[in-house]
Amino acid sequence: MESRNIRLAVIPGDGIGTEVVAEGLKILEAVGTKIEPTHYDLGAARYHRTGETLPDAVLEELRGYDAILLGAVGDPSVPPGVLERDLLLRLRFEFDHYVNLRPVKLFPGVETALADTPAEDIDMIVVREGTEGLYAGTGGVMRRGTPHEIATQESLNTAHGVERVVRFAFEKAKSRPRKKLTLVHKTNVLTYAGDLWQRTVNRVAEEYPEVTTDYSHIDAASMFFVSQPERFDVVVTDNLFGDIITDLGAAIAGGIGLAASGNINPERTAPSMFEPVHGSAPDIAGQGKADPTATILSVAMLLDHLGLPAEAARVEQAVADDIVERLAGWAGRTTHEIGDDITARVSG
Amino acid sequence: MESRNIRLAVIPGDGIGTEVVAEGLKILEAVGTKIEPTHYDLGAARYHRTGETLPDAVLEELRGYDAILLGAVGDPSVPPGVLERDLLLRLRFEFDHYVNLRPVKLFPGVETALADTPAEDIDMIVVREGTEGLYAGTGGVMRRGTPHEIATQESLNTAHGVERVVRFAFEKAKSRPRKKLTLVHKTNVLTYAGDLWQRTVNRVAEEYPEVTTDYSHIDAASMFFVSQPERFDVVVTDNLFGDIITDLGAAIAGGIGLAASGNINPERTAPSMFEPVHGSAPDIAGQGKADPTATILSVAMLLDHLGLPAEAARVEQAVADDIVERLAGWAGRTTHEIGDDITARVSG
Ligand SMILES: CC(C)[C@H](C(=O)O)[C@@H](O)C(=O)O
Ligand SMILES: CC(C)[C@H](C(=O)O)[C@@H](O)C(=O)O
Repeated sequence: MESRNIRLAVIPGDGIGTEVVAEGLKILEAVGTKIEPTHYDLGAARYHRTGETLPDAVLEELRGYDAILLGAVGDPSVPPGVLERDLLLRLRFEFDHYVNLRPVKLFPGVETALADTPAEDIDMIVVREGTEGLYAGTGGVMRRGTPHEIATQESLNTAHGVERVVRFAFEKAKSRPRKKLTLVHKTNVLTYAGDLWQRTVNRVAEEYPEVTTDYSHIDAASMFFVSQPERFDVVVTDNLFGDIITDLGAAIAGGIGLAASGNINPERTAPSMFEPVHGSAPDIAGQGKADPTATILSVAMLLDHLGLPAEAARVEQAVADDIVERLAGWAGRTTHEIGDDITARVSG
Repeated sequence: MESRNIRLAVIPGDGIGTEVVAEGLKILEAVGTKIEPTHYDLGAARYHRTGETLPDAVLEELRGYDAILLGAVGDPSVPPGVLERDLLLRLRFEFDHYVNLRPVKLFPGVETALADTPAEDIDMIVVREGTEGLYAGTGGVMRRGTPHEIATQESLNTAHGVERVVRFAFEKAKSRPRKKLTLVHKTNVLTYAGDLWQRTVNRVAEEYPEVTTDYSHIDAASMFFVSQPERFDVVVTDNLFGDIITDLGAAIAGGIGLAASGNINPERTAPSMFEPVHGSAPDIAGQGKADPTATILSVAMLLDHLGLPAEAARVEQAVADDIVERLAGWAGRTTHEIGDDITARVSG
């Protein structure tokens, strides 16, 4: 890494977003990086004050950062979907975050929702496509509100979009001990898109003879996540299936309080964005109850992306150690206390 | 029920389909119904012999039956999706099976994949739309096989299609002790379709003041199925989300060997079709290993649909009793033996 400061845009967002991001920033400082954070007040408050979600000028400013750390956006006072689409999804699309990277890993000591599943059986990484599919937002409505209403949604899939994320997934699979890649789709029903995904995986697979490839329909995969999670190493899938399966992944790997994610632009033509998988959880906001671990693990992914793998490993190890001791005192700790405990381990 | 024989079309299909259907038919006989089964050899074998999946003449013949019992279709020797689309989905569409009814219920004594979840927490019924959404099969491909390929899939949702299944779900919810209905969708991303679904639920809800309504995004719902299944009583959702969430439901409720389903045409303008949720499982076909319980529970749904609720209850009770004793001897029993054991309970 060059020695200039890393410029980080911070979007705490709404609800528990602000609480968990504060802990993430503590970790960044404790780990000894030269990171210069700048806060952006995007989210529900700004929307109510000015009507803005993501002004073009702010978008362009954000483009100049090395990375973005985001808490969570969304509030019941804002019409459903507005902040998600015009802020969160817009950032993913504008900055071409075509890899949405979501580890599903059960840390030893964490209670899983699954009976009789050893921790080592849950250790996969989901490579979710982030810029296409049904998230394109195309579709429409005709005769709205009448008995003859028709509403459509369109899933758009391109060779360009599918191939780049599939290649990323193969590289990931190649770097892991098991070297296994599973495509998750629904090729028997989504025949056009499924055919493109399957052909692309087959073609790229020829360049990766050391990687074993597998296929699972999304319905069967959802079942296997619960009954045989050890089937999976690297999963590559489309935007919507990835959305579903990573929340399910969070459920089996200790809950949404631990699920980290990175919205990655691998070519670095724009900043990548790191965020916990959880939402703004307005029901528990302001109570110091939120678990900041997902954000802290997202910070580890951010450090790794910025070329600081040793720092990333220290943060991950601190989380792993904290979790082992969690069994004793977890229930009582506040957001700050968890942040402090992990910070102490990172610094110490 | 009138005293004429019930005319049942039986489509055993492929793989374990034939094995489990044989047990289902034993139960139908044992329960003392006047059912006259006629077998149809649709599936992989016929496809290879004649190239036919579902000839129009057979479709019209099937239309004349009181109900259909289907095992499973699909075989690796047939191009993926052909039998599923041209046979299974075609029957659902042609016979307007707009309600795909899938109970997710943990029988006492069954081991669940979830830790610390009492059996009574898993007792819901998923009302999956069966004739619209992404299953419409519309979409297309341009510049196939080139770097400029575009593949699209379209989700088609109509006021007519959504309202009728939502009404069915409210009726179902009203008839159950908890009277709770949860819409599962992804309204923050699938804005056109989501808006139609949500508005329809809101409007119909006014006619059902005794039913509590709730909403969950599909990603959160997938998590809740694992972490808080007790949240759900009746779930209403679209075709694809229903496909995913019912396999997940099977995983938490004792596995795919127990998951039953009914493809219902509530107006009875065409025969309804009952089938286990599982597939043809070519890997274990012919070995007598398949659990016929899902088919037997589908037979119970069939009896109920045909106006024989007492018989349906007897079959369900026989399954419940068999399951309680399963703990002792389950592992050793073949498909036939399980069928025989349940048959004995039904007759005895
Ligand atoms: C908030 C929502 C639009 C978003 C998504 O669907 O991608 C979220 O569920 C996620 O997974 O990051
Ligand atoms: C075989 C397949 C087309 C089918 C579906 O997707 O509906 C199956 O998964 C099911 O759930 O009955």
